[in-house]
Amino acid sequence: MRKKIKKINAAILIIGNEILSGRTQDKNITFISNWLNLKCGISVKEARIIPDEEKIIIKNILTLTKKFNYVFTTGGIGPTHDDITAKSISKAFKVKYEYHKEAYTILEKYYGKKKFNDGRKKMAKMPRGAKLIYNPSSAAPGFITRNVISLPGVPSILNSMIENCKKYLIKGLKIHSNTINLFTVESNISKQLGLIQKKHKKFVDIGSYPFFRLGKIGVAIVFRSTSLTKLKSVKTDLMKLIKLKKIEILKI
Amino acid sequence: MRKKIKKINAAILIIGNEILSGRTQDKNITFISNWLNLKCGISVKEARIIPDEEKIIIKNILTLTKKFNYVFTTGGIGPTHDDITAKSISKAFKVKYEYHKEAYTILEKYYGKKKFNDGRKKMAKMPRGAKLIYNPSSAAPGFITRNVISLPGVPSILNSMIENCKKYLIKGLKIHSNTINLFTVESNISKQLGLIQKKHKKFVDIGSYPFFRLGKIGVAIVFRSTSLTKLKSVKTDLMKLIKLKKIEILKI
Repeated sequence: MRKKIKKINAAILIIGNEILSGRTQDKNITFISNWLNLKCGISVKEARIIPDEEKIIIKNILTLTKKFNYVFTTGGIGPTHDDITAKSISKAFKVKYEYHKEAYTILEKYYGKKKFNDGRKKMAKMPRGAKLIYNPSSAAPGFITRNVISLPGVPSILNSMIENCKKYLIKGLKIHSNTINLFTVESNISKQLGLIQKKHKKFVDIGSYPFFRLGKIGVAIVFRSTSLTKLKSVKTDLMKLIKLKKIEILKI
Repeated sequence: MRKKIKKINAAILIIGNEILSGRTQDKNITFISNWLNLKCGISVKEARIIPDEEKIIIKNILTLTKKFNYVFTTGGIGPTHDDITAKSISKAFKVKYEYHKEAYTILEKYYGKKKFNDGRKKMAKMPRGAKLIYNPSSAAPGFITRNVISLPGVPSILNSMIENCKKYLIKGLKIHSNTINLFTVESNISKQLGLIQKKHKKFVDIGSYPFFRLGKIGVAIVFRSTSLTKLKSVKTDLMKLIKLKKIEILKI
């Protein structure tokens, strides 16, 4: 029986002047990427941070939606004038921007008829055909339009909704990751590490990242693959190199 | 005398699989953006995070270098196989990738002739014509090629080098920013805030960002402009709205 290998990828599009200006530290890229990796076997291949400007949002949606299996947007789905994600996605896909019936009902129930003002009603407006991503923290739903998943920018709310995205996603093969932390400097092993990467190029990605710990300089060697066997084979090669160079391993 | 208004912008290109995979939280975007804003009057208009892949780096360099006054890259200038930023920029600009004489001398002196191995020598290889950005923490310099400024990925090292970029940058007009923190919800003020933004559209950007503090929900209103007079005028309008709605201001 042939096993079908599915490599599924995604891009993240962070929409918000506050991230670009440096006022707010983005936390959503790391969170979404880790979640996609661990829970769905989906690799994030690009992330972009762009301002709250309609033309720019439309252009990026159109570019990323063609290049990747999924595009996750965060931000711009609240009630204020700078929340223009839903409208921009509608324009990008040339579909109507209109009240989503179920979203309208959810929000009306949450706020009560009297307090359901224009700003709040705006959060029920979505591209026609969008499907809802339920929000257990603050009612206002996210939504999926074609392959674009739109989530809020506030990390705590986004985090509470992420599991509700799962049913819309095709899972890829799980990506396994292994790390060896060494008390050495990158340039001591860079040549041999390059050769090991070359040997296993097709199936394993090897990265090396300097760290400072316990007053000493070190390097974290991270190797990632969808195949546990190939990962093991890289580990064997790395252990040989470590032994040869008499490098101390940091055990965490 | 006519005063020339210079709006200078920049993009940030983060090169590194470890950021995209969610293993490492990026801190460089916030740092560079704040520094450019405060010290140089330069606005960051886009940030991208991409993998350590030559083709992708080249494509992004070529796109961003045309669209923005400056492009800051971080990551990929160390000694290992996955450090390919300098080589990729050389290819993008079709210039030779070669030893930079001064960089070579700096690194040879730092490591000593005996310990100056191939990995370390690699850090002296740059696009022909690049100018150095000195590195007070770990010797290996960054560099500027045309309008592309290349810095290391490790935040502490990057931070120590940033002031050395200044001499290569044309300064823009200082961007002033003001924040009023309100104990209210966005949807309570969204309509009027939209009108204030519309009125001052040409000169002031207004953003609203929910927060949770002291057990209460609030909204930070951030308004930014190169003109202090226009900023003051927006503040007057906001204070009227706050008074009208009897909203409590959070004093920080």
